[in-house]
Amino acid sequence: MHEIFYPRSVAVVGVSARKSNLGRNIVANLIEFGFDGIVYAVGHRGGVIETRRIYVSVGDIPDHIDLAVILTPAETVPGILEECGQKGVRWAIIESAGFREYGPAGRKLEEEMMRIADNYGIRYVGPNCIGAINLENGFCVPFPRLKRFVKPGGVSVVSQSGGVGMSVLNLMANEGVGLNKFVSVGNMLNTDAEDLLEYLIEDEGTKLIFLYLESMTNGRRLMEIARRSPKPILAFKANIGELGQRIAASHTASLSSDDKVVDAALRQAGIVRVHDATSLGNNLKILRLPPMKGNNLAIISRSGGHAVIAADACELSGFDLATFPDSFLREIERHFRASVIRLTNPLDLGDLFDLDVYAQIVQQTLELEAVDGVVFLHTSLSRAEHQASRLLLERLMEMTLRYSKPVAMYISTAAHEVNYLKTNYDFPVFTRVVETIRALEISHRHHQQHDQARATQTFPTFDVDQDAVRSLIQQAKAAKRDLLLPEAVQALESYGIPAARGVAAATATDAQAAAELMGYPVAIKVIADQISHKSDVGGVQLNLRNGPALADAFEDMNCRIRRAHPTATLDGVLVQPMITGGRELILGGRQDPQFGPVVLVGLGGIFVEIFKEASVRVAPISRDDAAEMIEELRGAPILKGARGHKRSDIEALIEALLRVSQLLVDFPEIKELDINPLRLFHDGEGCCALDARIIL
Amino acid sequence: MHEIFYPRSVAVVGVSARKSNLGRNIVANLIEFGFDGIVYAVGHRGGVIETRRIYVSVGDIPDHIDLAVILTPAETVPGILEECGQKGVRWAIIESAGFREYGPAGRKLEEEMMRIADNYGIRYVGPNCIGAINLENGFCVPFPRLKRFVKPGGVSVVSQSGGVGMSVLNLMANEGVGLNKFVSVGNMLNTDAEDLLEYLIEDEGTKLIFLYLESMTNGRRLMEIARRSPKPILAFKANIGELGQRIAASHTASLSSDDKVVDAALRQAGIVRVHDATSLGNNLKILRLPPMKGNNLAIISRSGGHAVIAADACELSGFDLATFPDSFLREIERHFRASVIRLTNPLDLGDLFDLDVYAQIVQQTLELEAVDGVVFLHTSLSRAEHQASRLLLERLMEMTLRYSKPVAMYISTAAHEVNYLKTNYDFPVFTRVVETIRALEISHRHHQQHDQARATQTFPTFDVDQDAVRSLIQQAKAAKRDLLLPEAVQALESYGIPAARGVAAATATDAQAAAELMGYPVAIKVIADQISHKSDVGGVQLNLRNGPALADAFEDMNCRIRRAHPTATLDGVLVQPMITGGRELILGGRQDPQFGPVVLVGLGGIFVEIFKEASVRVAPISRDDAAEMIEELRGAPILKGARGHKRSDIEALIEALLRVSQLLVDFPEIKELDINPLRLFHDGEGCCALDARIIL
Repeated sequence: MHEIFYPRSVAVVGVSARKSNLGRNIVANLIEFGFDGIVYAVGHRGGVIETRRIYVSVGDIPDHIDLAVILTPAETVPGILEECGQKGVRWAIIESAGFREYGPAGRKLEEEMMRIADNYGIRYVGPNCIGAINLENGFCVPFPRLKRFVKPGGVSVVSQSGGVGMSVLNLMANEGVGLNKFVSVGNMLNTDAEDLLEYLIEDEGTKLIFLYLESMTNGRRLMEIARRSPKPILAFKANIGELGQRIAASHTASLSSDDKVVDAALRQAGIVRVHDATSLGNNLKILRLPPMKGNNLAIISRSGGHAVIAADACELSGFDLATFPDSFLREIERHFRASVIRLTNPLDLGDLFDLDVYAQIVQQTLELEAVDGVVFLHTSLSRAEHQASRLLLERLMEMTLRYSKPVAMYISTAAHEVNYLKTNYDFPVFTRVVETIRALEISHRHHQQHDQARATQTFPTFDVDQDAVRSLIQQAKAAKRDLLLPEAVQALESYGIPAARGVAAATATDAQAAAELMGYPVAIKVIADQISHKSDVGGVQLNLRNGPALADAFEDMNCRIRRAHPTATLDGVLVQPMITGGRELILGGRQDPQFGPVVLVGLGGIFVEIFKEASVRVAPISRDDAAEMIEELRGAPILKGARGHKRSDIEALIEALLRVSQLLVDFPEIKELDINPLRLFHDGEGCCALDARIIL
Repeated sequence: MHEIFYPRSVAVVGVSARKSNLGRNIVANLIEFGFDGIVYAVGHRGGVIETRRIYVSVGDIPDHIDLAVILTPAETVPGILEECGQKGVRWAIIESAGFREYGPAGRKLEEEMMRIADNYGIRYVGPNCIGAINLENGFCVPFPRLKRFVKPGGVSVVSQSGGVGMSVLNLMANEGVGLNKFVSVGNMLNTDAEDLLEYLIEDEGTKLIFLYLESMTNGRRLMEIARRSPKPILAFKANIGELGQRIAASHTASLSSDDKVVDAALRQAGIVRVHDATSLGNNLKILRLPPMKGNNLAIISRSGGHAVIAADACELSGFDLATFPDSFLREIERHFRASVIRLTNPLDLGDLFDLDVYAQIVQQTLELEAVDGVVFLHTSLSRAEHQASRLLLERLMEMTLRYSKPVAMYISTAAHEVNYLKTNYDFPVFTRVVETIRALEISHRHHQQHDQARATQTFPTFDVDQDAVRSLIQQAKAAKRDLLLPEAVQALESYGIPAARGVAAATATDAQAAAELMGYPVAIKVIADQISHKSDVGGVQLNLRNGPALADAFEDMNCRIRRAHPTATLDGVLVQPMITGGRELILGGRQDPQFGPVVLVGLGGIFVEIFKEASVRVAPISRDDAAEMIEELRGAPILKGARGHKRSDIEALIEALLRVSQLLVDFPEIKELDINPLRLFHDGEGCCALDARIIL
């Protein structure tokens, strides 16, 4: 990918002498940004722009070309690619639109392009994109005419939408965040976001990567690449709902994905997900600083009101305010006029007006072991203080590096001074108190997650009977059906997941015999391939206490099912001992089209019925992942034994989750696995799958 | 209050010729902002500043003074107020700090000031504040030296913190929101936020009011005033947690309040609560436009990516995308190049570059009855388009007024152009897509809530037996105790709240006799004044099915309680028929120190045990309030009969809530009322209080 950003010679194809020609803008941008290579203009009409010859075809250029930037009508692109191939051009950025996103004719053009590119070994970005920028060498080929608006820095941007990409650059300019490289990937026909991510992770100038995505075609690869990254990665994934899908389809031909899976996958890969520009701005700013490693904050403020707002925000963000030791308070006390201010954290600077003393106080605070980060809330109302404020900012920059702790600086002052600070210092400046605290929360969370995702994670595997499951699946496949209930139970048992063993019985008499052996009360469940929601049609009968009750229930079940499914083949019932006590959960997984096998767990009852709540992760999962899945359930306190409830056997649940994960990874043929309910008993007493469904 | 903002002659007290003197800044600010009245400088050292005489005392000024602005050391303020009183000055703004917020000596000074002001009939703002601004007459008396940074407009600001107030003005300047009046209220010794709110509601120049508050000393008055306001009111209430309280106490001597009650009260009063500057900015911008009356949005975008993000945000904000009629699509189709764009909502303008056509399309969209508001997502990357973009904005302004529907305009362009638009047009400009949609959500919600709060609300009162409750309370008061369980049950019944009648029994034999009469199974509950959490000590025994079981339970209860509370006086037990079925809820209320009686309702079980969830409102409540309280419970779907659950008798619950509200309003002596559980039966079957506690 290096040549995409560092070509030595570029042909811009689609240039004409017309004023409204967009190709001209590309040439002008390369000049404006000071590109350090050679640029040739190409356009089928030929001519001259600003003393520069327009070649009629790429083949006419009397020089080697590293990269072609193509912006011509869609139908001409395959021909131009062919010319490029013959000329020996091996890299291209195709900005033209009118392909797959416009319908079948466009899709055909894309196929032709793929064929030609394969033929010559051409790699290209696009089509349907806005181009790329590299501020290191002045390479800048978007087709809108640009001024140098964003300063150079360490953030690189990969965007699936040109328009959104440009507005991210505007945001960065506004927030004083410096750009390294930008690329808009469009239809990702030859080069996708993952390829570029992989390149940027290795790229020396890039310190942080932001991705804007409307689809995730190869989610698993994205996860693998991101997990290897020592650099922070941020992602905005749009097209998450039904309304977004309406327009995304015609915009970048993107398919939507299950947003809960996307959320889990990004998290597992250590990628920070952002949902709006406000949070993106916070992230881009705070992740330039050393991370907030612990939970203890110090707030130092020139205004009592800002300190109150910051302290409220602290509480909402889950931070603690560090307790200042007495020796520290005695040390700083001498700066203050006697007895007019209560020295505490938040520290109100009150009538202390010496900015040099502020810096000393911040430094002393950073030296405290109990402090993991500092929020400095500055107010500079009078023009006379601007110079001193700039010096203060320089000292804070230096200190944050020296102590390797973040100092998040908020400032309330005139807009032009804020702009001066943002433009001239490579240090984040916040202008909203609550966002300042939120940014530190991001820093803290990212530090933890990033560590976790990068840790040499082990995905435990258990000693299981893979062959047993394989033959169950083969058998079902041969019969063109899903696994029957007793088979599903057997599959779980083969993978060491405790399940309520049952005995299949074809008649009421058989069922009674089985029940006598295992002891009443029992439950019976219909065995029938075509019925997937058994309990909806009376196919589950619980708490049968004796023979006559069992016979009644059997008869009743038969009647109701025949009425509901006249054509279904009933293969009898499964008789199980009646198991009560503990908590009901659901446990399962499925194949996600973008991410492969995913596992899920949720509490039963109202949690699943009313809130439809479940935690999801992409398999395989680590023990930490499993614990985290349980932790994030709203009902987790119940399992952990809140308010006098007995603690459930969470360890057994974790193991069941890990074993389900292993089963789904081993058998991609399993489209859906659903254990509902899983009964989780008190601590030390394990769990038991009471019902299971495996769909192929 | 008029004289606070429109004085004809002002004495600034505390001016000296020293460069660092803050009083000088006040005089300079009045000149800078073009104050249209006369200004006198006063300082005990006398002298001259910039050709202006400094009078040694207010009494020396040879002219009538409407208002004194005082910024001198705290201990001198009472003397200066005395001088003002003698001189006939009736209004003052006291900016000095060092009073109650610094301890007992300061509190004494405040008492002296109150005495003097009462004596002369002086009304004043402060102390411990930053002053006031009125952009209508150039009155500007904050002590930091200010330039004219915020443009004139219709927003007035009341802030309990000077620092926060100034940063709100910076935010307004940045967002292009115009200011009318600003006042910082400090310690609110004589004039509180409610007084100023009342004034600003009547003030002609004020179109929208923002309050920053750290305390709500007279919440009920705030609600009454706000309910009468035809103008939108926004409030940021800080000091909501334990950490904020730490610093608020020493900042403005503010006490914290129960934040859930604050939330409910603001909502009931039609005040929009904001929690950060981002949402404040959105509110200030969008509430200048006509309200979003319905739920149907049209998105028109120049960039497909922005349209995807906006559509996602729409879904999260609960908006629908209006369906465009065929005739409309045919009408706009002619503007587009054939067959390259799918015409739908969101409408991607694609390769259409004519800004005049954009305006036509927006207008045609506004004409559709199915559309309640429009989001226009504009991108103006090239400088050449700036002029056309400005014209477009003017046309959008005109259209939004003509059709009385909001057009929220987002623009992605260079920062200087954004600033130009914000500074020069009285029309909101958004620069973040998601915030644009959130702003419209605010507009929609505010329209609904404001309507509801302003509607002639009736607080239903029922025909109840007030006298019965009065004598129960008098009896308990005389005995210096709370109501006993049977008395609490009787109080509920007197107010028409169905309760499980019971029979008090002193011995097991009496209890058995009572149970025989009402029929088994029964429940027994201990009657004892000193035991408030009965079930924690075995004081509640349920489901007793016959005489021996009842006797056993009675004996067991006695034992356990005597062990837990050796000194408690047991007054026997209450025997109640065992009532099962339906859902368990909690219902009750209490006296809030700031807001008076409040009522609350919540679902029992995990909702209250684990989530501690309950809806709260300030009493009295309307039928709509009661319905809304139930609606906002997370478990509401269960009551409404989701997923096969039977619908509960919500009407009965609403009535019980209204009756509890009436009881608490009638008897402020009731400190706490707690019905736990209330059993709510299926639709049409009513409800029943199974246990009740009334604390005086």
